Amino acid sequence: MKRIVVVLIAVLALAGVVTYMAPASGQADGEPSPIYGITIPPGYRDWKLIAVDQLLVPGKADQLRAQLGNDIAIKALKEGRVPFPDGTIIAAIHWTRVRSEDNDRVLAGPFPGAQSFVVGSPVNVQFMVKDSKKYAATGGWGFADFTDGKPGDQALHETCFPCHTPAKDRDYVFTHYAPQ
Amino acid sequence: MKRIVVVLIAVLALAGVVTYMAPASGQADGEPSPIYGITIPPGYRDWKLIAVDQLLVPGKADQLRAQLGNDIAIKALKEGRVPFPDGTIIAAIHWTRVRSEDNDRVLAGPFPGAQSFVVGSPVNVQFMVKDSKKYAATGGWGFADFTDGKPGDQALHETCFPCHTPAKDRDYVFTHYAPQ
Repeated sequence: MKRIVVVLIAVLALAGVVTYMAPASGQADGEPSPIYGITIPPGYRDWKLIAVDQLLVPGKADQLRAQLGNDIAIKALKEGRVPFPDGTIIAAIHWTRVRSEDNDRVLAGPFPGAQSFVVGSPVNVQFMVKDSKKYAATGGWGFADFTDGKPGDQALHETCFPCHTPAKDRDYVFTHYAPQ
Repeated sequence: MKRIVVVLIAVLALAGVVTYMAPASGQADGEPSPIYGITIPPGYRDWKLIAVDQLLVPGKADQLRAQLGNDIAIKALKEGRVPFPDGTIIAAIHWTRVRSEDNDRVLAGPFPGAQSFVVGSPVNVQFMVKDSKKYAATGGWGFADFTDGKPGDQALHETCFPCHTPAKDRDYVFTHYAPQ
């Protein structure tokens, strides 16, 4: 069966029909996060959008953020299914928030006083990986936090699960699926 | 060939391999936008993320926003290709920006003074559709703006192209692909 599926995928890829396979079927690469041993999932930047948000910690952080999910995550979120099934991965991408003078100039005509903020540079990217057996001690979730492709240290990763415990009734996931 | 592909897709769908097909192969539905005749592209909410941004027009608008692209759009953006090829569609989803007291409570411990803003309710969704022949008079782009699934009026749609002309050197697209 496996060989047949591979052949079928190859045929469809040649037909230009399958374009999303490569990232989802790729292998993890790079240095793993401490404690949880999670590497950056290939192709995560092309996952579907869960939601966006903004974080402001005056003097410390000023970010625009997006949460993306693999197919298992998106399906569970759309169905409102909790707990998330094993195999769920949620990615949280954080960028600096910067004022767009270009946009402001354009908006000034139709929308006087408009302020547009766009993403600046990458800050970090975080992952939650559901494996109810492997990560039984932390609610079934493994955590990872990467900056410039390098995982943060053990002390940083020790903060992940305690911080997520207030969202226990939503299986430790803060983000809600954005409507529309 | 078409029938073979359909059968192959059905086989792969049953095997749980193909999950992205339905939206991309669906047909447009609903009332079209004036001037351009664009309907809401099925499955757009599952397209890949281009970028996120924030718009603030004091007293009028306070939004978090995401731009998504179909496969043609994403490929062109990753390659830095301008002008965008025919078939490109870019979706801009706008939500109200609301303070998350839940998040603020959690963040207060590790990040005193932290302010978290998340998406509230949908405001509108806009589309840019590239068809260099059909929309030759407007830079090759057709525009559409929907609120609650209904297109805005002709007067609204007459503002789209003039507003986008300052981005002519980037083929009328303001949004840059977000790094990381």
